[in-house]
Amino acid sequence: MNLKQLAAEKAVEYVKDGMRIGLGTGSTAYWAIKKLGERVKEGLSVQAVATSKASEKLALEQGIPLIPFDRIDGLDLTIDGADELDRGLHLIKGGGGALLREKIVAYHSKELIIIADESKLVDKLGSFPLPVEIVPFANEWTMASLQEMGAKPMLRTEDEHIYVTDNGNYIADCRFGVIENPKELHQTLLALPGVVDNGLFLGLAARAVIGHSDGTVTVIEP
Amino acid sequence: MNLKQLAAEKAVEYVKDGMRIGLGTGSTAYWAIKKLGERVKEGLSVQAVATSKASEKLALEQGIPLIPFDRIDGLDLTIDGADELDRGLHLIKGGGGALLREKIVAYHSKELIIIADESKLVDKLGSFPLPVEIVPFANEWTMASLQEMGAKPMLRTEDEHIYVTDNGNYIADCRFGVIENPKELHQTLLALPGVVDNGLFLGLAARAVIGHSDGTVTVIEP
Repeated sequence: MNLKQLAAEKAVEYVKDGMRIGLGTGSTAYWAIKKLGERVKEGLSVQAVATSKASEKLALEQGIPLIPFDRIDGLDLTIDGADELDRGLHLIKGGGGALLREKIVAYHSKELIIIADESKLVDKLGSFPLPVEIVPFANEWTMASLQEMGAKPMLRTEDEHIYVTDNGNYIADCRFGVIENPKELHQTLLALPGVVDNGLFLGLAARAVIGHSDGTVTVIEP
Repeated sequence: MNLKQLAAEKAVEYVKDGMRIGLGTGSTAYWAIKKLGERVKEGLSVQAVATSKASEKLALEQGIPLIPFDRIDGLDLTIDGADELDRGLHLIKGGGGALLREKIVAYHSKELIIIADESKLVDKLGSFPLPVEIVPFANEWTMASLQEMGAKPMLRTEDEHIYVTDNGNYIADCRFGVIENPKELHQTLLALPGVVDNGLFLGLAARAVIGHSDGTVTVIEP
């Protein structure tokens, strides 16, 4: 069993009968959805919403009942991966480009559990480039402002075209170096007109389930 | 001469030869663009960018040279209207739905001059509903969060359909009542996932030119 699967399957133990579940996106969330599907086949009753088309498709294949998010007023639990996390459960997410939808779903969940292999756990955030979602209008000016902030921003591309998010925006991948004060950086980024959101998830995760190479799983609570 | 025209024509006096000018949107900015066109016909040399299709069309009709905003790295001066302003030059904008583009253009201008008739000047902001631009994804949840903040949000409609901004988003018109602390409200709104931006313009305007019903014009500087 790989480390991602190890962490994902442990996290699914937190799912209780009757819960409304948010399904994350990515290679670790994949294993959580597979495991949740097994438990549903065994009789667990849940309703779920997905943060991406890929997760929605996988959930349907696994027989997990999906509900349109406009039919419920929030979620009990969301299980999702992260690109980087520290022991205070500050996260960087958005490597897959779904940061805004993932953040909205996490925000409206009573609890967010992060699942990751041990390579994602760092002392301080910043090795992974921080994804910043920006509007296309005047994006050259927004990129210049990010550059002035020391972000070394790169406009994300895909197949030699500018990558466009599900919300019709662009992603600037920003290399700030070690992020000493995530909260301050988060506020500074939000205050820049043209920035829609960014991959810093602060105060959202309730616990992280980490898979280690020795086959153990640890749980971090802030 | 109406009050809007009075203020607009005074503001255009601040335009100097060689400047790069941001053109606002709305019924007051209309008069500024008309007057700027007159000065261009008299020999004034400027380059301009517009915050809306309507202003772009009007500028072209007036013979004002437009430049794509990606060809320059910022602006010298933007002249724009406001839906409400106080004497500290805190503004509410976005009644016309262009708040995000207007804020980006204002932010990248060395100076923003606001033009308005005296009816827009208030002791404290909040009579005019604050426009909040939100992403369509899970907008019901974002609206619910705004409601919890005391916003009494109304999703803006046009011809019985949901109004969609130039950036593909929705507008929630929010009635907070008197806004005692605009800065705090601004930060609280930005921190809500799903909120792209809002109509509070703080620390952006350098002066406001106000047309009064007695035919005078006053200039407010914070």
